[in-house]
Amino acid sequence: MFRNDSRPLVTAPAETAVLALLLAEGPLSRVELARRTGLSSTAITKAARPLIDDGYLHELAPERTAPGAGRPVNPLAVTPDREFFVGVKISDDRLFGVVCDLRARVRATAGRTLGDCRPEAVSGLLTELVGELLDAEPAFRERTRHLGIAVSGDVDRASGRVRFSGRLGWSDVPLAAMVSASTGLTVTVENDVKALTIAEHWWFGEGVGTGYFALVTIGAGIGSAIVVNGQLVKGAYGVAGEMGHICVDPAGPRCRCGSAGCVEAIASSGAILEAVRRGTGLRGLAFEQAVEMAREGNPVAREAFARAGRAIGVAIATLVNLVGPERVVVSGEGTDTYDLFGQHIKDAYASHTFGAAGRCPLSLRPLPWEEWARGAAAVAVQALFP
Amino acid sequence: MFRNDSRPLVTAPAETAVLALLLAEGPLSRVELARRTGLSSTAITKAARPLIDDGYLHELAPERTAPGAGRPVNPLAVTPDREFFVGVKISDDRLFGVVCDLRARVRATAGRTLGDCRPEAVSGLLTELVGELLDAEPAFRERTRHLGIAVSGDVDRASGRVRFSGRLGWSDVPLAAMVSASTGLTVTVENDVKALTIAEHWWFGEGVGTGYFALVTIGAGIGSAIVVNGQLVKGAYGVAGEMGHICVDPAGPRCRCGSAGCVEAIASSGAILEAVRRGTGLRGLAFEQAVEMAREGNPVAREAFARAGRAIGVAIATLVNLVGPERVVVSGEGTDTYDLFGQHIKDAYASHTFGAAGRCPLSLRPLPWEEWARGAAAVAVQALFP
Ligand SMILES: [Zn+2]
Ligand SMILES: [Zn+2]
Repeated sequence: MFRNDSRPLVTAPAETAVLALLLAEGPLSRVELARRTGLSSTAITKAARPLIDDGYLHELAPERTAPGAGRPVNPLAVTPDREFFVGVKISDDRLFGVVCDLRARVRATAGRTLGDCRPEAVSGLLTELVGELLDAEPAFRERTRHLGIAVSGDVDRASGRVRFSGRLGWSDVPLAAMVSASTGLTVTVENDVKALTIAEHWWFGEGVGTGYFALVTIGAGIGSAIVVNGQLVKGAYGVAGEMGHICVDPAGPRCRCGSAGCVEAIASSGAILEAVRRGTGLRGLAFEQAVEMAREGNPVAREAFARAGRAIGVAIATLVNLVGPERVVVSGEGTDTYDLFGQHIKDAYASHTFGAAGRCPLSLRPLPWEEWARGAAAVAVQALFP
Repeated sequence: MFRNDSRPLVTAPAETAVLALLLAEGPLSRVELARRTGLSSTAITKAARPLIDDGYLHELAPERTAPGAGRPVNPLAVTPDREFFVGVKISDDRLFGVVCDLRARVRATAGRTLGDCRPEAVSGLLTELVGELLDAEPAFRERTRHLGIAVSGDVDRASGRVRFSGRLGWSDVPLAAMVSASTGLTVTVENDVKALTIAEHWWFGEGVGTGYFALVTIGAGIGSAIVVNGQLVKGAYGVAGEMGHICVDPAGPRCRCGSAGCVEAIASSGAILEAVRRGTGLRGLAFEQAVEMAREGNPVAREAFARAGRAIGVAIATLVNLVGPERVVVSGEGTDTYDLFGQHIKDAYASHTFGAAGRCPLSLRPLPWEEWARGAAAVAVQALFP
């Protein structure tokens, strides 16, 4: 993260716990907050006070849960409009931007077509897009301090640098510093799959502090992000969830990572296309044509998708056997061709999961681009925390 | 866990945090405890009081860290002899037992040869072994309430049942209830690899609340246990770390789990032996003979170990790419033949790790059986917590 204003909103652990719970779960009484955090009611009241004074929290009207249930309780709630957050997802041909409020509602959207992928060009267009988003309502300009950017590849969130992004052709780009200078916002950059997983699991997702969850994306790239005990798995060296580069076939093709037999070398849309081109001799074939051939029953094209599906299914089973998620969401643009390999994914998954781990369901959710940008906004919200 | 005495020592989150930190890290001042837990000094003092009254904690003599550094501090420390814990590791031919004190020191050891693997026979012998251990010092009998048992296979710690153990030929054995009835102790049963990982990482290992770590065991079975953000990965359905049953070769042999191409079907000592028998036609060959043949240069035997090494190396790389541990410890009786496949493990590992994840070193540690029993004792200590 690259901060123009380096003070997080909350610093004490109690404040962090209170704000995080209210952001994720909506209004809660002080008694409930005390129960959930393990803190005393006094500590909750003390932690909430500065957040109320700053306008981030407010008290709802008193409610009685049951007649004779004792003193009325005033639940605490996040004030959605107190601050806004911009999230931008960078794909290889478009920028997608949203403004979110503190309760994760999307309040404005905008996009840009990306012609030139060089860092300066992307940064310039991104700055323009942020300007358009902030101009949508006067309150956005007044009360937006944080921008989150989601990008595929190896991102060092702490320094705000994109270490490597094959899809954009970037290596070691100080994106947060560049965009922070041009927008005046505090900028956090995160890997796109991780950003979406954070958002799904923490902000508009499955709840705080619990659970095992994984998000797998398929398409031009293959990746995953994993939540264990309610926390994103980040890896001791900043690398984790690299499902695209686990080896599922020692006799498999070379991968652009330098290794061989990686899932991505078999099952990315590029790898599928290459297999169809090689099998048919049609060197100039486009991916859409390969899809059409498979749908029309061409055996070479069908087998390329089938092999990709088996590789993806084995890889998800591997993740499940090692980490044991409660459920796995499969998304990404590759879900457009699920009719061609969905059954192969499911069959390979079912036959390679071990014991009770295999109870974990796969759910297909072709997430719209707006959700990815919302994931980027979730990363911006996290900048409120130390 | 099967409890004869169902009250944990600590119940409030603050007490749990204080005791866990002092167990893992040794003496700490109240100020340091407050800083590390995020609690107030008042809360620390309040949490420590019952533990001091019960004799679990004591105050060390005051120390001044620097001249003029203010009031002298009395660090709090665990009283090692306040309670003792028995740990027993069950292998397929022996029982290994230890008595540990609260600071994880081994105070007594004993063992038994296991002839009959039936649950009743094992339970009987285990009861005898626990009796011998407790008789070693009068204080052990007086102040031991908890027994931990470590066993290979699928263990349901909550109910104290061994759901399945291929090595012992057990399915659904209520081991904790059986041994609790015969010893009068509160019994916790845990998978052996998980128990050792808990102990390595929490009690005599790498510290509390931090870190990514994995322990891989090779030999008759292949397994792993993974720590993420300082916590053991348990899996939403109770299954995780099943490195032995991830598929590394779709054309690989059938596995006893019903799937194909599993690491264990290629790289367990049984699978290596089977490959040498098949390749040489020597059906009656023993594993020790296969090892000798490989050491003498027999190409069939050498290739069986090489293939096993590659499968193990790919599997560890897969674990590392997904979870990103800081280091991986490789142990188990299979390390005895590291001369035959160690280099293959390292080479396959190096060529299949992705980016910075590959900085994670593999360290070979042939852990003595006593360490496994100490792992079981660590699980018994955890019964102090809610
Ligand atoms: Zn690769
Ligand atoms: Zn298997």
